[in-house]
Amino acid sequence: MGEMKPRAETKNHDSGDAYWRTWAARYRAELVRRIMPFWMEHGLDRENGGVYTCLDRDGSLMDSTNSVWFQGRFGWMAAYAFNHVRRDAAWLKASRSCCEFLERHCFDADGRAYFEVSAEGVGLRRRRYVFSECFAAMAYAEYALASGEAQWGDKALDLFRRIRMFMAEPERRMPPKYEPCVRTRGHSLTMILINVANVLKQISDDPVLDAQITESIGLLRRYFLHPEFKAVLETVGQNGEFLDTMAGRTINPGHCIETSWFLMDVAVARRDDKLLGTALTILDWSWAWGWDRIFGGIISFRDCRNLPPQSYEQDMKFWWPQCEAIIATAYAWRLTGRAKYRRWHEMVSEWAWGHLRDRYYSEWYGYLHRDGSVAQPAKGNLFKGPFHIPRMLVKAWELTRDL
Amino acid sequence: MGEMKPRAETKNHDSGDAYWRTWAARYRAELVRRIMPFWMEHGLDRENGGVYTCLDRDGSLMDSTNSVWFQGRFGWMAAYAFNHVRRDAAWLKASRSCCEFLERHCFDADGRAYFEVSAEGVGLRRRRYVFSECFAAMAYAEYALASGEAQWGDKALDLFRRIRMFMAEPERRMPPKYEPCVRTRGHSLTMILINVANVLKQISDDPVLDAQITESIGLLRRYFLHPEFKAVLETVGQNGEFLDTMAGRTINPGHCIETSWFLMDVAVARRDDKLLGTALTILDWSWAWGWDRIFGGIISFRDCRNLPPQSYEQDMKFWWPQCEAIIATAYAWRLTGRAKYRRWHEMVSEWAWGHLRDRYYSEWYGYLHRDGSVAQPAKGNLFKGPFHIPRMLVKAWELTRDL
Repeated sequence: MGEMKPRAETKNHDSGDAYWRTWAARYRAELVRRIMPFWMEHGLDRENGGVYTCLDRDGSLMDSTNSVWFQGRFGWMAAYAFNHVRRDAAWLKASRSCCEFLERHCFDADGRAYFEVSAEGVGLRRRRYVFSECFAAMAYAEYALASGEAQWGDKALDLFRRIRMFMAEPERRMPPKYEPCVRTRGHSLTMILINVANVLKQISDDPVLDAQITESIGLLRRYFLHPEFKAVLETVGQNGEFLDTMAGRTINPGHCIETSWFLMDVAVARRDDKLLGTALTILDWSWAWGWDRIFGGIISFRDCRNLPPQSYEQDMKFWWPQCEAIIATAYAWRLTGRAKYRRWHEMVSEWAWGHLRDRYYSEWYGYLHRDGSVAQPAKGNLFKGPFHIPRMLVKAWELTRDL
Repeated sequence: MGEMKPRAETKNHDSGDAYWRTWAARYRAELVRRIMPFWMEHGLDRENGGVYTCLDRDGSLMDSTNSVWFQGRFGWMAAYAFNHVRRDAAWLKASRSCCEFLERHCFDADGRAYFEVSAEGVGLRRRRYVFSECFAAMAYAEYALASGEAQWGDKALDLFRRIRMFMAEPERRMPPKYEPCVRTRGHSLTMILINVANVLKQISDDPVLDAQITESIGLLRRYFLHPEFKAVLETVGQNGEFLDTMAGRTINPGHCIETSWFLMDVAVARRDDKLLGTALTILDWSWAWGWDRIFGGIISFRDCRNLPPQSYEQDMKFWWPQCEAIIATAYAWRLTGRAKYRRWHEMVSEWAWGHLRDRYYSEWYGYLHRDGSVAQPAKGNLFKGPFHIPRMLVKAWELTRDL
């Protein structure tokens, strides 16, 4: 689909007040009236603690297997909504329930977290990656901030140090998927650690956090940005070299757009204009690769040499890339006032609201075909739950409410 | 979509001679003129030996990573076509090249096969499952039959015994995906071993082969057939109990239809009418679950409680379930003469020929959307290559040519 030509840009923060006011009101109302209530009512497990995510369109439970990612993600999300939108005691309690479920049931004897546990908390499956641990650390930190209970902040920092240790010696922790001769670097963990460290910085001034952020940004710039394709690649060689394989050519535009707004967070905190430039470059490149000029929406995968991507979901439209694009375009407009970002915000917001949102039951669909039709209507599974959509609603509301 | 009502059945082997003659001619011509030449020209690696499968629509190489499954699958397929369709020396040589590549490069020091190796034969990745080993054993056996070189038959039987050993002690070979408390049984290995043993029986009368077939059929009947859903389930508990989880409810109709014709092979060889009955029951159930009455074609996954299946590909139409259905319906018609099987054969054949076959380049597409439109046009990857389509063409030609 090639690159989009940006139109002439105008700096004009004054225009479109009504536009942003309308969206800000929608974000808050959707969060408070439809998204949080859906998970509070159907997801929370009042018997065992923690949260279920395998919910059908109407909220009915399809599978009681618990996603460990989502104990952390909702533990974080409920406290984040409490901290930023409304000091709702039920949200705080939900966050605590997820944090306690994590502590009690979700870690194995060697300190690694599970990926799946039963409703009663029996560990069912582990995976190699440390995402479960990352989301747990975010939950502990955000809950500590919400509740004022400092011990959860200590737990968060301990876990963060453990994550860095696991990453430094991956061989000792779990057998790698590929043989030792295969040495590649992945974009996703580099990126998520920026966000985890940012969350922890709210409750700790430990220098390890800023060191992690600086390190991750360095890795991103050195290895993953590939100007020859105007793309951030998901998988590169040990020294950032382009791998001309199906995995090496993969672009995940939604993922890159998420990275771009994580970097905007850091650029604002550090007043770092050069970093803002990097963030905007990533957004511009990734929008050009990701926006579907035929059907609209951000597509799942592209191949940087325009060969057919091989993942089944390659041309589907998932919920989360649309959420990341809404945040990133609103953020970019707020920081630069460039008209194209408002235009992109409108394109992706109208598309997401029109196609993902279920008008009859609460919450949004997650899995659409390329043309925007619903592929399957469940509201959650082990990978979709109360995270990207409510995070987008809170973040976008904060970015737009005073525009 | 519920169950299809069979129309009144008529025994009439005489009708439709022209119908079957037309299809038989198509099968052979497609195999000899379009499918085998595509892989012989674009797939075979004349430098390193073995076969590439990551080929784009026109046959150009997209990724030189070698699938170990396909060294075995094409090693088997080329010899199978040689044994059944035409004694083409180039096919025999291709089979030998794959067998030698397997022997030289595809096994690790502990006797387990890799899943991916580089073009030069460096092992890149292993997986837990023994499918690589199964396909290698099939290749060795079929090549032994084609070439008369008895040592490949010995290698096949040795490998088959090793597979049974790996299965008996899975813990010692590779860490399981799930924790020890999770005890489930999967349909796929049970089923494929019937086929592997059947191939090996051509070159060996070792009683282990018939014992494996009898054991697999017993497991299938005892654990995986669930009349309460009129379905064969993919994953059940240790004692065959229904698991009310997303994995436990999954029906893979193409997979079950493949099982049904593996059983027809055994029923014919053993003159076992009861087994033929089981095979037809599985075909009837699986057709009812799998045939898409809106868009046609066999769909990827269904949920036995009609909840939304969670895999991304759930409503896509893949190449291989259509191939299995063509074989199974032709086979069932040949063995019973029931009109519904001819009708089903026509439905799935017209759909497959019309949607999967690429009219401009050789070979067929693999990945279609539910409505039959092409999701991505590549002809191969690590999972699609010269196997299901040419196997269907040979098998269906043999089943129909003398009708």
